[in-house]
Amino acid sequence: MTPEPQSERRSERARRAILDAVFELAVGKGYAKLTIEAIASRAGVGKPTIYRWWSCKGAVALDSLNERIGDGIAFPDTGDIAADLKTQLTAVTELLTGDVGRVFRGIIGEAQNDPELMETVRETVVDPRIRECRARLDSAVAAGQVRADLPTSVMVDLFYAPVYYRFLLGFDAAAVRRCPELVEEVLLGLRPRTPHM
Amino acid sequence: MTPEPQSERRSERARRAILDAVFELAVGKGYAKLTIEAIASRAGVGKPTIYRWWSCKGAVALDSLNERIGDGIAFPDTGDIAADLKTQLTAVTELLTGDVGRVFRGIIGEAQNDPELMETVRETVVDPRIRECRARLDSAVAAGQVRADLPTSVMVDLFYAPVYYRFLLGFDAAAVRRCPELVEEVLLGLRPRTPHM
Repeated sequence: MTPEPQSERRSERARRAILDAVFELAVGKGYAKLTIEAIASRAGVGKPTIYRWWSCKGAVALDSLNERIGDGIAFPDTGDIAADLKTQLTAVTELLTGDVGRVFRGIIGEAQNDPELMETVRETVVDPRIRECRARLDSAVAAGQVRADLPTSVMVDLFYAPVYYRFLLGFDAAAVRRCPELVEEVLLGLRPRTPHM
Repeated sequence: MTPEPQSERRSERARRAILDAVFELAVGKGYAKLTIEAIASRAGVGKPTIYRWWSCKGAVALDSLNERIGDGIAFPDTGDIAADLKTQLTAVTELLTGDVGRVFRGIIGEAQNDPELMETVRETVVDPRIRECRARLDSAVAAGQVRADLPTSVMVDLFYAPVYYRFLLGFDAAAVRRCPELVEEVLLGLRPRTPHM
């Protein structure tokens, strides 16, 4: 088997250029005004090259977001669930109140009228983090730091919901960045129940 | 002073026709495809009549939503804060998973790229309910059913956030309608703290 290093390198260069172009344009002009034409032109590729890998501008933009996010919002496991949730939510809210959030907001807005794009939002960005959060909560349950009688899927909603609620309903950036403070209040209801004395 | 009953009646009829037209069209064709032209044509008025009262299609649509909502999601006060929150959130989630939600979702989507429209969303639909919820929580604090050491503005976020999180991030209607079940979990952390024994 002979690999095709040159063509692979070309492909990777094109992919890189497209992902950079979509992010820069979405930050600069706003996601709503972004077109596949503009992305192709800035990346120096033809439109068919973009459509070979992605179905629509939302899908390209989501991939560019995931690249920027990288593992910057991975869940730490220091053994202290409150501290770890605060660390992770702080990283999330910093992203959401910066350029990544600006682009993500545009995509989520478009997805309100496009169920297929909403599915891609969930699959590429939201659901992987929900799974990571559940895994971290599972280990907190195992360590006896969190109730075992409530599904971790429900707990995840309680921690993430204030972030998205404030982010998507026009609260200012400072309010979004205060979300990690809510971790303690939510955890109060999620600590293991001690028997009544 | 002579009132102008005939012209007032005409105005009221036109306003009524416009509000009905915007809601029916937004439900039927989808909010994203709605135009001021189509609203004017269905309502049998000229576009200037619409622009005399509203600045954009989002503003008309929000008024039509508020009319449909009416006082259907007012906060009851039976003296039991858990029951009252559940009653109100059940009414909210029923609206959000029906025609009202379909139109509201379209407006919120557009508002992600239109800060002025987001402000109108907050002022006309969201903030009045936040104030009502805070008033109900204030009376629960006074009754000793809820902690007095946490601002009710923060509590409101905890109750409403899961609703909007699920509604705007592509969760299915059943998940949205299960939000009232979370009231008890959130309240666990908001009950007055008893001294340690």
